[in-house]
Amino acid sequence: MGKKRVMVPVGQVDLSTVKYEHELIQAPHLTGFVFRLFVRIVEAPLIGPFVISLMKKQNKIDELLRNTVIPEEPMFKPEYPPQEMEPSVIILEEDGRPEDRVESALNCLPHYDPASYWGNSSTPFRYWKIRDYAAAYRSGKVTPSTVAEHIISVIEEISNKKPWDPLLVSFDAEEIRKQAAASTQRFEAGNPISILDGIFMAIKDDIDCYPHPSKGATTWMHEVRTVKKDAVSVSRLRSCGVIFIGKANMHELGMGTTGNNPNYGTTRNPHAPERYTGGSSSGPAAIVASGLCSAALGTDGGGSVRIPSSLCGVVGLKTTYGRTDMEGSLCDSGTVEIIGPIASTVEDVMLVYAAMLGSSPENRISMRPSPPCLPNLSSYDASNALGSLRLGKYTPWFNDVHSTEVSDKCEDALNLLSKYHGCEMIEIVIPELHEMRTAHLVSIGSECLSSLNPDCEDGKGKRLTYDTRVSMALFRSFTAGDYVAAQCLRRRLMYYHMEIFKKVDVIVTPTTGMTAPKIPPSALKSGETDMQVTGYLMRFVINANLLGFPAISVPVGYDKEGLPIGLQLIGRPWGEATILRLASVVEKLCGESKKKPGSYYDVLRAN
Amino acid sequence: MGKKRVMVPVGQVDLSTVKYEHELIQAPHLTGFVFRLFVRIVEAPLIGPFVISLMKKQNKIDELLRNTVIPEEPMFKPEYPPQEMEPSVIILEEDGRPEDRVESALNCLPHYDPASYWGNSSTPFRYWKIRDYAAAYRSGKVTPSTVAEHIISVIEEISNKKPWDPLLVSFDAEEIRKQAAASTQRFEAGNPISILDGIFMAIKDDIDCYPHPSKGATTWMHEVRTVKKDAVSVSRLRSCGVIFIGKANMHELGMGTTGNNPNYGTTRNPHAPERYTGGSSSGPAAIVASGLCSAALGTDGGGSVRIPSSLCGVVGLKTTYGRTDMEGSLCDSGTVEIIGPIASTVEDVMLVYAAMLGSSPENRISMRPSPPCLPNLSSYDASNALGSLRLGKYTPWFNDVHSTEVSDKCEDALNLLSKYHGCEMIEIVIPELHEMRTAHLVSIGSECLSSLNPDCEDGKGKRLTYDTRVSMALFRSFTAGDYVAAQCLRRRLMYYHMEIFKKVDVIVTPTTGMTAPKIPPSALKSGETDMQVTGYLMRFVINANLLGFPAISVPVGYDKEGLPIGLQLIGRPWGEATILRLASVVEKLCGESKKKPGSYYDVLRAN
Repeated sequence: MGKKRVMVPVGQVDLSTVKYEHELIQAPHLTGFVFRLFVRIVEAPLIGPFVISLMKKQNKIDELLRNTVIPEEPMFKPEYPPQEMEPSVIILEEDGRPEDRVESALNCLPHYDPASYWGNSSTPFRYWKIRDYAAAYRSGKVTPSTVAEHIISVIEEISNKKPWDPLLVSFDAEEIRKQAAASTQRFEAGNPISILDGIFMAIKDDIDCYPHPSKGATTWMHEVRTVKKDAVSVSRLRSCGVIFIGKANMHELGMGTTGNNPNYGTTRNPHAPERYTGGSSSGPAAIVASGLCSAALGTDGGGSVRIPSSLCGVVGLKTTYGRTDMEGSLCDSGTVEIIGPIASTVEDVMLVYAAMLGSSPENRISMRPSPPCLPNLSSYDASNALGSLRLGKYTPWFNDVHSTEVSDKCEDALNLLSKYHGCEMIEIVIPELHEMRTAHLVSIGSECLSSLNPDCEDGKGKRLTYDTRVSMALFRSFTAGDYVAAQCLRRRLMYYHMEIFKKVDVIVTPTTGMTAPKIPPSALKSGETDMQVTGYLMRFVINANLLGFPAISVPVGYDKEGLPIGLQLIGRPWGEATILRLASVVEKLCGESKKKPGSYYDVLRAN
Repeated sequence: MGKKRVMVPVGQVDLSTVKYEHELIQAPHLTGFVFRLFVRIVEAPLIGPFVISLMKKQNKIDELLRNTVIPEEPMFKPEYPPQEMEPSVIILEEDGRPEDRVESALNCLPHYDPASYWGNSSTPFRYWKIRDYAAAYRSGKVTPSTVAEHIISVIEEISNKKPWDPLLVSFDAEEIRKQAAASTQRFEAGNPISILDGIFMAIKDDIDCYPHPSKGATTWMHEVRTVKKDAVSVSRLRSCGVIFIGKANMHELGMGTTGNNPNYGTTRNPHAPERYTGGSSSGPAAIVASGLCSAALGTDGGGSVRIPSSLCGVVGLKTTYGRTDMEGSLCDSGTVEIIGPIASTVEDVMLVYAAMLGSSPENRISMRPSPPCLPNLSSYDASNALGSLRLGKYTPWFNDVHSTEVSDKCEDALNLLSKYHGCEMIEIVIPELHEMRTAHLVSIGSECLSSLNPDCEDGKGKRLTYDTRVSMALFRSFTAGDYVAAQCLRRRLMYYHMEIFKKVDVIVTPTTGMTAPKIPPSALKSGETDMQVTGYLMRFVINANLLGFPAISVPVGYDKEGLPIGLQLIGRPWGEATILRLASVVEKLCGESKKKPGSYYDVLRAN
């Protein structure tokens, strides 16, 4: 029987007494046989619940959810007061045609000079942008069909390589050729649909992309759930002319942050094949970082777009909760998850975001989304609009990273923003970060469990990977009372953040607390549990999921081993335009000299 | 390991194949020693969870929540599209002063002729209405202070009576005298605040009414929760001049529907002292039905205002979820519970409702309440506005009652509405009533558990009554995944009901499936569990709680033992005005010859 703790009502918390507490995670790192044995124990009757409750006790989970009086009402999903419009933005028509929104987005971009890239092969490496492809298609230099053949040959080459790099879990060369031929025809007829026509994208395996199955990178999800059409976000991209190369690999069901996947193999980091990509959108980030596609869609319920973007050196946008339509994704019922784009540059993220956005009609009943906007970067110096931006930084948290290289590089970027763009740095305090992590864990876990339960009770639970099974055992231990208590914590955290957003425009953090971790060879076959690594990878991403804020990861450099480092910008609700604007400036300041990723790129460039 | 069941998406359910299923409740009726033993077993380690899981299995709870694929997203609290304004209504200013709203409500009422009551002592019995008191005060016939003395003497007389009738759990004669003296002074100065000035009310023990403690009729809640001010709804009434006589008895923590309470004694039905009042707002309904007060506030999370109103022959209004401010009530964090008025007539309910209503600013962010309205009954024949009202009736459900006397009396009322007011009766089908009950049970239980958990873990759980302890053991068995699954069911049920509300304006049912049940003498000391009775009492009330609809219980007659029967009218979201209008017509048609309640009334009338 525990001792009761009483929380002070959120409005009376004295922030000056809040001390940052380093997250102490008490859990063993297990791989191989010991890990498999551990999973058996955790799943056993009587002893299993006991082990789980011991782990929860060490991490003070029950203490928080059952022995604590939380005076706030539950907030079951992110709820905000109506927000003010951001300055210098262009409004996109949520109900309009995706191709019109893409056109509006194009008008937001700075002038494009094809010569900047095509004219000069001695410039430092940079990725082909969407506008580079578009210009090449329009000039007749290349057709979508020729690019398709290069992509197909790369994927087939990868299939024969060691170590095997499973970027895609569903791939059909003929299907790609068909889409590419249609696009090529449109160009030949002089009628491309939009700037996205002929642009190649990959879709994470938990988002429907017809005719591929959606397995969430499990071995069996397609047996119980048939894909009959595109997810709403995918169909919007398709109507702009996008070509889909298949379903990208991921951490099984999104329940992990490394991208480890014994079912299909673990995706390799394009910057270091012995290292993880991060997850769960491992495939999407790796495909973009390798240069195979211009962009990809991922889902982000606990950093799953931003973590791999950071670790792979690309740009990943987590949209505001409710900004994108989740219909046709495996986790469409969650309160923390969104679909978001990954691309190599901020401008490509803007183009894809413009096409795929739009909340579901149901969401518009229960929330009041501000209209989607993009920053206007075309008609004036983008930096002018930054002058008054106030950036909030919680320094002890910001610095709580595995290697100071990460925080130093992010700090450098902030210093450049202050120096060249007059951004004001404001020290902030975010209390109850442990409470936030617990509330998030209970929310995402329970929502996931509820949708998987019928199949697990039906016996398919045993066909999940070992680390998913550990997660499921943990999730099963959460009571309905725990879930409600977690939602009360969500209201507290929302209050703190909305108070902070009265004083700052953007909260800045490193995206991840470490660069890409090594893949233990013993973890390839049956996975692993390493809560230390999970802790570093998830340290800064949770706020935006639990509270629904938009957030973007933008590369700011490399550590001494050449591994990418990402800076995270967290915006106000519906504040995508502000963080996109800021990200485009950061990109200019820090991202000029890109490190060329691994080997696929050369195959593509041979084109 | 169960067999998976897959629900058809809600939009594709073929209503013509839906068959009404009588609710089969599998649970023993226990009182006395056997009941206490049962509670010990249920709370024991290992065997307790086993017994609970057996009970849940018999009632197919896990099968529904864990083995069933529910294709809908969760709906964590009632959400509606914006609603059209009802016809012939007067809008009340939600942000205005309560006394101004009461003035508006007064203008909605038909002309008042004091002679109708005061002039003629040979008319059949009827309760004193608020306007009777108001006229008496204004004419100088009587003062609030003299009424206060009569009330105090009745309460003191009750205290010495056998069987003891514990209407109030907190009472302070001096406090009543002080309020009454202030009101009397206002009348003497010719400055009453509103029509509610000097009107006596009781407040259920789970709503704060300073300086009384709020115990929820437990023995210890005041030790852990101090009352420093009125609940918002109470303070609005106080600002209109209402005099509060104390905290009304209730089923402990609202976790029961009979009003059984071993802590303070079980409130007796004014129409038959050997019978229950119904609950959980047992005290409020009995106080009004006995004529002790004009009105009372109750809470209704699972019929707790309507059930005792029905069983005691008074009018009880469950407001739309979000229509009233829950601040200052014990269960302010729920998604099914509201505060609502109980009074002897529809017009008194309207006056009290006008004063106490107003959603919290927080709710207005997350929902879009239509403005509160009242039916205008003053300027024309109220029946004119009824002509086009379509009443939906699900006959096999309507008739699924303990004694046909109940459904027959309700049917009679409907026939009168058709005959004299041209209301159209429309046969409807409501599928998934079992699913609805389960979703409600999980929601209310988990929300309750989460707020009580810290004190129970702290040892106070053992000081709850036995039947609350059984409920808590059941609630503890619900997992977070169950909670989320229940919310998916909520979305399905909302869909069915909103489809029905496209075809009908009001859904009609008996309020309860039986009249007041007998109190087993063996249940007085340590309570009882009788799920059969619970089933009959709750059969028709859940829809309005799970889905947030407004609903009213209005008396339509008596069974052959002289026990009151209530008709329930369930309205569209924010549709209080429509059901109040209809209820006032039903009252005229059925409620003319009231049965005089028990003995207190004569004491009061001696005045």
